[in-house]
Amino acid sequence: MVNCSNGGLELAAGDRLLRFPAIWLRDNCPCAECLDPGSGQKLKDITDIPNGLVVSAAEDAGESVLVTYAPDRHVSTFTRSWLAAHALGPADGEDGRTEDDKELWLPADLGPVTGRLPEESWPRYLAEPAARARALGAVLRLGFVLLRDVPPEAGLVLDVAASFGFVRETNYGRLFDVRVEPRPGNLAYTCRQILPHTDNPYRDPVPTVQLLHCLRAADQGGDTGLVDGFAAATALRAADARTFDVLVRTPVPFGYTDSGTELRASQPLIQLSPRGRVRGVRFNHRSARPLRLPYAEVTAFYAAYRRWAELLGRPERQLNLRLAPGDCLVFDNTRILHARTAFAVTGRRHLQGCYADLDGLASTLAVLTRGDDLPRPPREGMARGDEPSSPPRPPREGIRRADRS
Amino acid sequence: MVNCSNGGLELAAGDRLLRFPAIWLRDNCPCAECLDPGSGQKLKDITDIPNGLVVSAAEDAGESVLVTYAPDRHVSTFTRSWLAAHALGPADGEDGRTEDDKELWLPADLGPVTGRLPEESWPRYLAEPAARARALGAVLRLGFVLLRDVPPEAGLVLDVAASFGFVRETNYGRLFDVRVEPRPGNLAYTCRQILPHTDNPYRDPVPTVQLLHCLRAADQGGDTGLVDGFAAATALRAADARTFDVLVRTPVPFGYTDSGTELRASQPLIQLSPRGRVRGVRFNHRSARPLRLPYAEVTAFYAAYRRWAELLGRPERQLNLRLAPGDCLVFDNTRILHARTAFAVTGRRHLQGCYADLDGLASTLAVLTRGDDLPRPPREGMARGDEPSSPPRPPREGIRRADRS
Repeated sequence: MVNCSNGGLELAAGDRLLRFPAIWLRDNCPCAECLDPGSGQKLKDITDIPNGLVVSAAEDAGESVLVTYAPDRHVSTFTRSWLAAHALGPADGEDGRTEDDKELWLPADLGPVTGRLPEESWPRYLAEPAARARALGAVLRLGFVLLRDVPPEAGLVLDVAASFGFVRETNYGRLFDVRVEPRPGNLAYTCRQILPHTDNPYRDPVPTVQLLHCLRAADQGGDTGLVDGFAAATALRAADARTFDVLVRTPVPFGYTDSGTELRASQPLIQLSPRGRVRGVRFNHRSARPLRLPYAEVTAFYAAYRRWAELLGRPERQLNLRLAPGDCLVFDNTRILHARTAFAVTGRRHLQGCYADLDGLASTLAVLTRGDDLPRPPREGMARGDEPSSPPRPPREGIRRADRS
Repeated sequence: MVNCSNGGLELAAGDRLLRFPAIWLRDNCPCAECLDPGSGQKLKDITDIPNGLVVSAAEDAGESVLVTYAPDRHVSTFTRSWLAAHALGPADGEDGRTEDDKELWLPADLGPVTGRLPEESWPRYLAEPAARARALGAVLRLGFVLLRDVPPEAGLVLDVAASFGFVRETNYGRLFDVRVEPRPGNLAYTCRQILPHTDNPYRDPVPTVQLLHCLRAADQGGDTGLVDGFAAATALRAADARTFDVLVRTPVPFGYTDSGTELRASQPLIQLSPRGRVRGVRFNHRSARPLRLPYAEVTAFYAAYRRWAELLGRPERQLNLRLAPGDCLVFDNTRILHARTAFAVTGRRHLQGCYADLDGLASTLAVLTRGDDLPRPPREGMARGDEPSSPPRPPREGIRRADRS
């Protein structure tokens, strides 16, 4: 059943009745006049579409539906399957980056005991697209993956980044060495304990992916801890909505200064999407700068801040790992806080790190598991999307998909 | 006058009475036990500070104030000038990236006629720190600067980016060529007109700075237009708050697809800071993907979207420039929309572009005009901030500072 109703389109799909407004249909018209066959980009501006557009006729043509618009008699051909796949409904319009598309965890869910630690061997990651897809999917879904057997050689962390995206170069260089320095410009370059934090909160845009590759471990200490900031934020909201509200609405100034650098950014410690869902955490006490808000807001903030810091610091929230030479952690720096224990200088602990971004990582995963949501004109010789570059990702039971492309 | 009151500190500074809570003072204590002299980073976590902290004594010591806390008798020494400069009050805590720290413009304010077009010659930019500071300040304040006399040689756009920050490499490479291609993967690589838009809306984080360097102009057409998206957004809010509200709360899906890329991001067309101030615009019709919201939200969005597109497309909002070989535009891709007219293929118009980020640009400017907000311990031999690398920026009358470091 297909008909036009209230100026839009109604379509039966199985036992569902789908409804689409005329303007939505027209804006997504897949004809070669409206959509560039080469790039898949729209050729008409929104203001090119006539005002007062309605669907004046809808014709059932088997697998396709022909929609005619008034006043200009343009015709769009949609496949039923595309319309069914793009049904309007209670979707939230988010893009896979909020709490709703993540698998939130406590270490008890993931630890080596339960065997669900997301890890992959680097040789297999390189050789098998499915292994690559599993590893990258873990970064989106769980916030991190541990790659094993990455040769402990200087610079290889850049190869890991290049396997899924692009290095975000910063004032620390394309890569940085995390080891004890005689005159450290950052506490990372000492042997001190560092509590859970996200990196570079004084940057905007903040690097959204961080890599840490172990070249040499400490004799004693220097263990790595990971905390799921999204899991902690949702727990805080459930337990103490008032504290959560203070944190999401208070911009906190962060800064970093050295002889050639003066970085500043102010953002809340918990960032929400426009629909009010947790979309980022930013937590780094050592780089926080003086708050400049009214007195009452300052005292309210500090009470909330301490509560949040205590929650993030709870041992049961911290997954403890001991990176061995050849281990490379890849993690979502907008979600996962990382920490390290103090260590003995004698072992000459040496990590190399670099930054990258989630958008490139998600793109690489989406190409590996190809499938896009472009309206497809019913024609041959398409320039995109018709040659999957790898077998589809094997299903993983009980785990929600984090990528929603 | 100095005293402790209600557990905090009161301090007379000129005719103002400043008040600071104990926790704020302690968290900003500049002593070597609390703040690392080398890095300026905090050495105490927020949870290291005793609960129930109060100021138990405040002592006037001329230029300094000594604050003693209970219960643990720690003592902080602050200079009066630092406390006065960091007075709490009705500040909004933002970091210079919202509408409040920008000079919003219409072309009539800036055009060649009035002589206020922000431009600088590249040789002078390289030679004179003050010229560099003026140019970078214009990007933060007005959203763009036009650099002249950048030799029209391939790759030089990367030198321009390196002069203030770091290139954001993407699937388009470190730099991209904007010229007519036989099989364009993006409409940018045709000779078509392109209406005002921001670049890469399908990326998150989006590149916050864009550079376009003209190597060769078109025989006819190919003119560049710039629109101040923040000025347009505030005008929309004033004229039609309901439309503005729809735009700030509706995440819009954007996408880009080619054989090796599947980028997706959903963000509202107007992004607000947590305090509700305009902090970003994202507008690119040709890369928009199907909205998946409920029917009523879709129709409300399209009405708002058309209104917004019409406002952005008004000729009186568009600053028209004709880039000549050697011109290099540097602009804020979170604020300024850019457009181009159609052009004749015969002239073999050729631009080179690249992306970078505002945080690095702002850092470079802040170093040029050195001045930080770290609490300064009253001691010698500081490792940071004591050697301004250039003369202070000359004042520009009637123009608000966009950098608030």
